[in-house]
Amino acid sequence: MVPRYARPEMTAIWSTENRYRIWWAIEVFAAEAMGEIGMIDADDAKTIRKAYDDNVLGEIDVPAIDAIEAVTKHDVIAFLTWAGEKLGPERRWLHQGMTSSDVLDTSLAVQLTQSADLLIKGLEELLDVLKRRAHEHKLTPTMGRSHGIHAEPTSFGLKLAQAYAEFDRGLTRLKHAREEIATCAISGAVGTFANIDPRIEEHVAKELGLQPEPISTQVIPRDRHAEFFATLAVVASSIERLAVEVRHLQRTEVLEAEEYFSPGQKGSSAMPHKRNPVLTENLTGLARMVRAYALPAMENVALWHERDISHSSVERFIGPDACITLDFALARLTGVMDKLVVYPERMQKNLDKMGGLIHSQRVLLALTQKGLTREDSYAIVQRNAMKVWDSDGELKLLNLLKADDEVAAKMSEEELEALFDLDHHLARVDHIFSRVFS
Amino acid sequence: MVPRYARPEMTAIWSTENRYRIWWAIEVFAAEAMGEIGMIDADDAKTIRKAYDDNVLGEIDVPAIDAIEAVTKHDVIAFLTWAGEKLGPERRWLHQGMTSSDVLDTSLAVQLTQSADLLIKGLEELLDVLKRRAHEHKLTPTMGRSHGIHAEPTSFGLKLAQAYAEFDRGLTRLKHAREEIATCAISGAVGTFANIDPRIEEHVAKELGLQPEPISTQVIPRDRHAEFFATLAVVASSIERLAVEVRHLQRTEVLEAEEYFSPGQKGSSAMPHKRNPVLTENLTGLARMVRAYALPAMENVALWHERDISHSSVERFIGPDACITLDFALARLTGVMDKLVVYPERMQKNLDKMGGLIHSQRVLLALTQKGLTREDSYAIVQRNAMKVWDSDGELKLLNLLKADDEVAAKMSEEELEALFDLDHHLARVDHIFSRVFS
Amino acid sequence: MVPRYARPEMTAIWSTENRYRIWWAIEVFAAEAMGEIGMIDADDAKTIRKAYDDNVLGEIDVPAIDAIEAVTKHDVIAFLTWAGEKLGPERRWLHQGMTSSDVLDTSLAVQLTQSADLLIKGLEELLDVLKRRAHEHKLTPTMGRSHGIHAEPTSFGLKLAQAYAEFDRGLTRLKHAREEIATCAISGAVGTFANIDPRIEEHVAKELGLQPEPISTQVIPRDRHAEFFATLAVVASSIERLAVEVRHLQRTEVLEAEEYFSPGQKGSSAMPHKRNPVLTENLTGLARMVRAYALPAMENVALWHERDISHSSVERFIGPDACITLDFALARLTGVMDKLVVYPERMQKNLDKMGGLIHSQRVLLALTQKGLTREDSYAIVQRNAMKVWDSDGELKLLNLLKADDEVAAKMSEEELEALFDLDHHLARVDHIFSRVFS
Amino acid sequence: MVPRYARPEMTAIWSTENRYRIWWAIEVFAAEAMGEIGMIDADDAKTIRKAYDDNVLGEIDVPAIDAIEAVTKHDVIAFLTWAGEKLGPERRWLHQGMTSSDVLDTSLAVQLTQSADLLIKGLEELLDVLKRRAHEHKLTPTMGRSHGIHAEPTSFGLKLAQAYAEFDRGLTRLKHAREEIATCAISGAVGTFANIDPRIEEHVAKELGLQPEPISTQVIPRDRHAEFFATLAVVASSIERLAVEVRHLQRTEVLEAEEYFSPGQKGSSAMPHKRNPVLTENLTGLARMVRAYALPAMENVALWHERDISHSSVERFIGPDACITLDFALARLTGVMDKLVVYPERMQKNLDKMGGLIHSQRVLLALTQKGLTREDSYAIVQRNAMKVWDSDGELKLLNLLKADDEVAAKMSEEELEALFDLDHHLARVDHIFSRVFS
Repeated sequence: MVPRYARPEMTAIWSTENRYRIWWAIEVFAAEAMGEIGMIDADDAKTIRKAYDDNVLGEIDVPAIDAIEAVTKHDVIAFLTWAGEKLGPERRWLHQGMTSSDVLDTSLAVQLTQSADLLIKGLEELLDVLKRRAHEHKLTPTMGRSHGIHAEPTSFGLKLAQAYAEFDRGLTRLKHAREEIATCAISGAVGTFANIDPRIEEHVAKELGLQPEPISTQVIPRDRHAEFFATLAVVASSIERLAVEVRHLQRTEVLEAEEYFSPGQKGSSAMPHKRNPVLTENLTGLARMVRAYALPAMENVALWHERDISHSSVERFIGPDACITLDFALARLTGVMDKLVVYPERMQKNLDKMGGLIHSQRVLLALTQKGLTREDSYAIVQRNAMKVWDSDGELKLLNLLKADDEVAAKMSEEELEALFDLDHHLARVDHIFSRVFS
Repeated sequence: MVPRYARPEMTAIWSTENRYRIWWAIEVFAAEAMGEIGMIDADDAKTIRKAYDDNVLGEIDVPAIDAIEAVTKHDVIAFLTWAGEKLGPERRWLHQGMTSSDVLDTSLAVQLTQSADLLIKGLEELLDVLKRRAHEHKLTPTMGRSHGIHAEPTSFGLKLAQAYAEFDRGLTRLKHAREEIATCAISGAVGTFANIDPRIEEHVAKELGLQPEPISTQVIPRDRHAEFFATLAVVASSIERLAVEVRHLQRTEVLEAEEYFSPGQKGSSAMPHKRNPVLTENLTGLARMVRAYALPAMENVALWHERDISHSSVERFIGPDACITLDFALARLTGVMDKLVVYPERMQKNLDKMGGLIHSQRVLLALTQKGLTREDSYAIVQRNAMKVWDSDGELKLLNLLKADDEVAAKMSEEELEALFDLDHHLARVDHIFSRVFS
Repeated sequence: MVPRYARPEMTAIWSTENRYRIWWAIEVFAAEAMGEIGMIDADDAKTIRKAYDDNVLGEIDVPAIDAIEAVTKHDVIAFLTWAGEKLGPERRWLHQGMTSSDVLDTSLAVQLTQSADLLIKGLEELLDVLKRRAHEHKLTPTMGRSHGIHAEPTSFGLKLAQAYAEFDRGLTRLKHAREEIATCAISGAVGTFANIDPRIEEHVAKELGLQPEPISTQVIPRDRHAEFFATLAVVASSIERLAVEVRHLQRTEVLEAEEYFSPGQKGSSAMPHKRNPVLTENLTGLARMVRAYALPAMENVALWHERDISHSSVERFIGPDACITLDFALARLTGVMDKLVVYPERMQKNLDKMGGLIHSQRVLLALTQKGLTREDSYAIVQRNAMKVWDSDGELKLLNLLKADDEVAAKMSEEELEALFDLDHHLARVDHIFSRVFS
Repeated sequence: MVPRYARPEMTAIWSTENRYRIWWAIEVFAAEAMGEIGMIDADDAKTIRKAYDDNVLGEIDVPAIDAIEAVTKHDVIAFLTWAGEKLGPERRWLHQGMTSSDVLDTSLAVQLTQSADLLIKGLEELLDVLKRRAHEHKLTPTMGRSHGIHAEPTSFGLKLAQAYAEFDRGLTRLKHAREEIATCAISGAVGTFANIDPRIEEHVAKELGLQPEPISTQVIPRDRHAEFFATLAVVASSIERLAVEVRHLQRTEVLEAEEYFSPGQKGSSAMPHKRNPVLTENLTGLARMVRAYALPAMENVALWHERDISHSSVERFIGPDACITLDFALARLTGVMDKLVVYPERMQKNLDKMGGLIHSQRVLLALTQKGLTREDSYAIVQRNAMKVWDSDGELKLLNLLKADDEVAAKMSEEELEALFDLDHHLARVDHIFSRVFS
């Protein structure tokens, strides 16, 4: 976790304090259920639950717990020792028949679920911004490019609608991913419920808003977590895509849009004129990180037998790092897109740049429809197009075509001119918007 | 693709011939739709469709198409040139207003969908085997291990039920992944439908069993493919988990199960006695590969502007390699699990190995329930357990506990003996099975 | 391996035939050494060696060997069975005291060494081309860009010199990597030389041009291979860098250089005017693949105990795939750079584009040297620079500065004009070239 | 960075304070050189250098610098503003003609070099321990295993010698990697030295113990960093290998060695008898992380044109995370190996386990040397070996062979017995040790 790429709400989820509070809740809810089913003294169980409701823990004394762990070398035991002191003799019921992983894995599930909720919220905010800006620029003509080369016109709104659709898929995926990791396991040392009634798991799950894990082996199976982090990696890849788009648009030679640049900001310590797309470049890097975290999550799946603990160190890194970084990245991207400065006149300038080459395909089609073979049409258009290209847009395709005998034999000047109409390319924007936003 | 890790049906999906046949179908269905909406001559369109139904293409002459491509350096044009020769003049309508990616991306969607169907079938077959064998060994007692160390007893059926549940999640994920990539895009050079009516896309989609891509930019957005290959990677990780389990079980010192070893087979060229878990070791390696393919798929997402073609070479590798390898791995794992030789008596031997230490937790709990603090109970059990441990299982925990005054003060010998009952650990297998298999 | 991304010489290294021929050499050289040290009959050993020198194997009958392997399920035994038939009774000495891995691992070392040699050759050819073109454009002024934004002028030769220096480092790394994997292990079932004299290993190593592996455990340790494939991945990343540079330069709005476009070539099936940087886009994708292969190579390191065989399937993929793909990519990049069409006049046009903003830093420095604080200088330059920026380069920085009173108070017009001299930026090209190319 | 997996010395290298101190040194050394070559006032330069030697900065006030950065949004400018206040008017010479990357990249080089030095020290300490323990157990017989199956005997010292040789290669690699990143770049906005004399770079490099970067483009090329982090990933993979070995040895059924277990330590909160290999499991997870960080480092190579800043966020994560984690892992592994509890008697017990099957290869060889074909020998040994195997080691191979007529026809009982001598397998340990440790 890098503090400058972290927001407080997500960071709090991954704090030691939050972790301990979740452990406490799990232990208490488990004791409560044990009391209900007669596994432990019912009154003691109620006392424990009441202590929880009265928040007897108060401030979590992390250093004190650390000090105990330094001796026991066992984190759950250390916490329970500390927390038990807040209770009377009923403390002896805590953790009855449970194993550390019951607490740790369920606790991680809660943290991941809380994180997923924030990420979902973050994605929804991004979608709102993209939707607004897409509609704002629904019919702003801009160059469509394949291979970085001018292709045919499109609208800037369509670019944003594409991003909207992509992140909307991300939202669906993230909701699936949330379901994947929202399970609770309190099933004992190897998952047999040998010393712990399944009703305890069911009660704790319910209190925490989780589903009982159908079958666990001390641990919740790690394919769930792998799926979760893989999903984050895919969302991060979509962030990279939009970030790269903005970076391209802000290039000096393109300059169709710019990240908002606040008055006091310095772009370069050496070159005062520079306004750099540093936020989207930063997002490109953050995406690489979130993507990288998916791999160790997948390697974590093949734990030995009923479990080993190799996954734990990995999750201490990627749990917070992936969630916090993606949360930050979503918010940063939302900010960038919200304030993105768009230059429609520059878009038009770029559209006009290549002497009308962007209309070449329509001419090609029209010639074919006039009865020429595709091959002949292609050759005619290409020979004229290449002249325009070589002139760096000084020559205009429309003029050359008008002067081309083979074209003239098939088409009037009016017909030709109609093929160079920009609006033609935006005629179906409405249709596409209705597909995306309805 | 490595031939020895490939099955014919999946390999055929990724053959050049299949690819060309799909291209042909797309071009024909597109022409058909164009005829219907009056974009091209209606009779010509019907002629083209009829030619398709009559299979005029016959054998695909791959070398001939390659030869054309060597000149044009463009694969779709090369194919169309060759295929066009099977038609009359109506050939000129082929590919009208379309761009190569309309064909290539939709074609890839078909191949991935076909692949997903095979993978789903493969997973279902694996699930069948796991279910059968889980029920067969539902109550076969076996050692549960955490950290590779004996923990508490479980049943071999539970191990298999866990695998079943995990692959069942994989099946759900794979079905989602199939939906992700089952889209069709015929939207023109930058996705505006400027020169191609959206109804064409809708018709082709319907004929091919796909959904129209709501918004494309010449290409189908690559987050879909990233999600697809990430899902394959997660399934592969689950394969690795079960493979590693089998490898552990087959270790000389454990030997609770073995891969089936056919009569003529040689385990080692040098050591005649060896029977090695080579299939599951192989699966471990294959899982690494399928996992690796997810990464470039994610890097493919951030194409430049409306598209670049950097994804294409990646997909020529990972399309076949990930699908073929995972298909093979699923089948191999199914075979391994189907014929796995299980040694219940050896499981029992291992259960008996550590002098009853595996029952230590029950004793701990019982002492606590008799009124000792958790700390005291732990200390009592641990001091006896350590003696057993140090004796390598020669000393028996039950005997030591009977002789321990502090224990004797709390519990009769009968009570102690009851705690060493193996069946206790299997009491909830039914409950868990009902969670997993119902 | 994807045939279209493969060159014949590298492909041949990874052919089944080459693999068998290397096995044969290993077995023969081992037998020869056994004869020399009296482990087997000396005359028989000479007979075997003579058979090798006489090439008794002739054509390798792969299907016949496959058929044997289908029964034995063991590849080395299958090959030896087939090859043994070419010998008389001396065949019984083949593979004495050896284990399959002695053959397989040493064979892989030979293939990787052969591959490394080709890759080194490929890198050297690329370096030649880069050196030539760097000198050709040593003083061709071009825009230097940070963040995609115009920064200060540089020369196109410097861009190429940077690439040269980077690939020259790649060459050094590749030579190290070659050394890493050029070892031979013939040390028996667990590497103790229990049944095989170390002199055999030494002899085989010498004959094959390898070093004896100081300590092996049936297998050559896989950290060597991990290092090798990681090095390939780093070289691939450098390929990506230069490929991305070319793609940027070929953008319609930049167009300072273009991949060579052969006369018959079609850029787009739909848009006749397009000339796309498809080769460098392709290289971007290929780099992703070579990078991906490094991961499973690293996961291969942690084999169980003296070895397991999980690495083998991985290496059947990545051995050929990484080497063949990188070899192809190096050659393709060499071709691209060799024929790259460079447009110096367009570079000048782009240099002139932003109204002289690229000289802003020199003005900033000059003002500071005239006694202004850095902060004041920055403010003065920035306020003028922003006007130029907002005018899209219509206003000229030099003119604005001349008209700025605070500037005029410090500097004459002549002094200002001198700061706008392009040659200033190329004054140290010679120095840098001498660093890189000497 | 996860505090529990961090050691103070390495953590300090990556502290904000250390970063600022390095920046300060770079700026000061640069100013000093500028004074020497007459680019700035010579006395002022000396004043700056003296201020450095007098440590005028004192405590670094990180919050104050953060506050400035919150306004300027530029970290180097923020630092210089704060640091400049410690100087008189000579502060205006700071950063003359330099660009932020001159400072940032050179600073990162210093941090990575400092880190490399610690890692090298860490590896050397590990090597010392491995060497000592290897010699301690040089002739301790232990089972060699391939595929997890008993193969032939080896010595425990050989296992450790293998690890020594592997980490010794890691040391060589790490030293190479240190050289890769130990370069200094002070070359101006696009690396042309347009406004900064190369002698400044040379001076700063010398003062910092770095090499001048032959050609930079504002930034030091990122292939160097990719190589560095890839090397760390390979070293981490070797850590994983040895960690997995220990985990296997500590399995209940194997139990040939154990991580040291301190008196107060609790293995399991639920099962008092457990002693788990938690340190090596932890190392397995840490290795996954260090490996994962190599990927974004490789993706960082392809910066746009002369540089973009996408690499920066990545390096804020992986710089500290990879170095700190690997440093911790090396130290932890050193501790584990230093105190590893080894059980030679258990090793012997395991050697005796399979009824002498581990000697089967020697018998095979001996029969061949007696004139039988390899195929016949194999069949004879295998049929006896299988009986031993099926008896779970109750039947002894030696006895069965003595009773086998075909064997008896070729060999006396004495000859047979000699083949079952354990010392035979350790006869070449000296030779191998001399290869590894000399």
